[in-house]
Amino acid sequence: MKIEFSQAVHELKNADKILILTHINPDGDTLGSGFALLRALRKMGKRVRLLNGDKINSKYNYLFEDLEEDEFDEEFIVSVDVAERKLLGDALSEKYGDRVDLSIDHHESSRRFAKKTYCEPHSASCCEIIYLIIKALGVETDSDIASCIYTGCSTDTGCFKYSNVTVRTHLIASELIAAGADHSRINVRMFDTKSMNNIMLERMCLSSLEFFAGGTIAVISVTQAMLRESGTDKSALDAIKPITRQIEGVKVGVTLREEEDGVISVSVRTDEDVDAAAICANFGGGGHIRAAGCEIYGKSIEKAKTEVTEYIVTYLNK
Amino acid sequence: MKIEFSQAVHELKNADKILILTHINPDGDTLGSGFALLRALRKMGKRVRLLNGDKINSKYNYLFEDLEEDEFDEEFIVSVDVAERKLLGDALSEKYGDRVDLSIDHHESSRRFAKKTYCEPHSASCCEIIYLIIKALGVETDSDIASCIYTGCSTDTGCFKYSNVTVRTHLIASELIAAGADHSRINVRMFDTKSMNNIMLERMCLSSLEFFAGGTIAVISVTQAMLRESGTDKSALDAIKPITRQIEGVKVGVTLREEEDGVISVSVRTDEDVDAAAICANFGGGGHIRAAGCEIYGKSIEKAKTEVTEYIVTYLNK
Repeated sequence: MKIEFSQAVHELKNADKILILTHINPDGDTLGSGFALLRALRKMGKRVRLLNGDKINSKYNYLFEDLEEDEFDEEFIVSVDVAERKLLGDALSEKYGDRVDLSIDHHESSRRFAKKTYCEPHSASCCEIIYLIIKALGVETDSDIASCIYTGCSTDTGCFKYSNVTVRTHLIASELIAAGADHSRINVRMFDTKSMNNIMLERMCLSSLEFFAGGTIAVISVTQAMLRESGTDKSALDAIKPITRQIEGVKVGVTLREEEDGVISVSVRTDEDVDAAAICANFGGGGHIRAAGCEIYGKSIEKAKTEVTEYIVTYLNK
Repeated sequence: MKIEFSQAVHELKNADKILILTHINPDGDTLGSGFALLRALRKMGKRVRLLNGDKINSKYNYLFEDLEEDEFDEEFIVSVDVAERKLLGDALSEKYGDRVDLSIDHHESSRRFAKKTYCEPHSASCCEIIYLIIKALGVETDSDIASCIYTGCSTDTGCFKYSNVTVRTHLIASELIAAGADHSRINVRMFDTKSMNNIMLERMCLSSLEFFAGGTIAVISVTQAMLRESGTDKSALDAIKPITRQIEGVKVGVTLREEEDGVISVSVRTDEDVDAAAICANFGGGGHIRAAGCEIYGKSIEKAKTEVTEYIVTYLNK
């Protein structure tokens, strides 16, 4: 059931022995939302604990390292920033998936798996919603809560860079800094820190960078050997894929990646004038207008690169 | 003479035939300040023109491309974001340097070269001050003015990332977005666009990256050949220098650059525990605790690298 903001606040006000669930591949928004809510509810005298189905990257430790553990049988379960049940991860989904009382979320794609769902799809982050809920609960935003909320506001907007930022996002950020959020240190951790493995992968990827069609197509090729040598896995490519399209004059950015089984996975990013999904459809793939993907079977990465770039040249000349 | 905010507003209110001067190597803050002020004063019916002593990078064209030129003998000269006279550039400094009526600035290092100076050293950008002046002048912030002001607010804070961001910065950003600032498109232009030359330089610099002392020292070496081959000049290194210190575990990041005359210019960036100025002092240089520099004469870049890294190893072991 879809509920209103005031009902979500009411549910939390009346709850106790609360279990908060966050999503797998935990990011700054789900963790910031979860630990801000945990801190606020504890300040109200409630017993609260939080579970995550995955390993939490140590860069997020400041969100919770001062907190004490608590063990109790939960009477109320709330999920934050979890768009669908399977994003709880297998173990938590199995154990709690059909018992979630309240889901608080901001995804367009949010599916109602909980008994009650409060979703604001136009909110830049789930943390924005959690902040307003904490205010409505009458809990003062201390500096720890402010830092948790700030983390989600900042990470889900690329540090206030993306088009999802609204008037409200900046208003909340100003209130969080006034409340003592450790904003610049958080931003250094989130945006200005790279692991040595990731920088070594970036170096290899830039070395592989090639241009075609007068600089309108840029291609990065990532082999299994590169991932092995840099000590990274495919998740490190999230930071690599945007590089090609950031280059001036590039209309189509392509990242080719050799999978363990030899399949070539292709990620295509385009500027406003080119349909990435249409390009990928030619190879049996699909996606969005500006970001799409496909897979190429039984070809070397070199051969796949030739086929994909040749098709894109034809496509651009249409 | 140092003046108060209200006096600065008063000066502008009473002025006409106004010439606005911006600083050389023009950035988003000086240009955003200048064109926002020009637009606002023109809305008041005044004649206003703007001069810059340098070539303006085309990425800033949206700040002024709809504006009409105007020619008149100036009766009042105002500089924005210009910390000292020589930053007007030789030609403008020669012609107008001792005739500036009002300087509006936010630099700690601001020197009073104008007849009257209004400086807020704690303002994250000059644009924040200009915005408040425009409001005080009673001019409505339209979407063009908002985009100009937003540009300075965003570029001088690394898109709201740096420690100079205050409660006021975010409050103003929220008002600018409400007024129609084209925020996400501006941020793509400013932060997610790299020239092909710059990306080629970055590729060469990452290829040159070396680690010493168990990964606590990272060194990038830039030769004249690299600048030539990539078609860049030393200004492109502004984007390169922060890379070394962003790597996890690195305490000292060094960028060595071969000058045209063979001198090796050394830039040292450190984390909180290491004094960059002390390291550079050993080579006759100096600077700040976390960013300093020195020059090494009569040595190859390889030899300079060995000397500098060996000294840093000794320094870290002290």
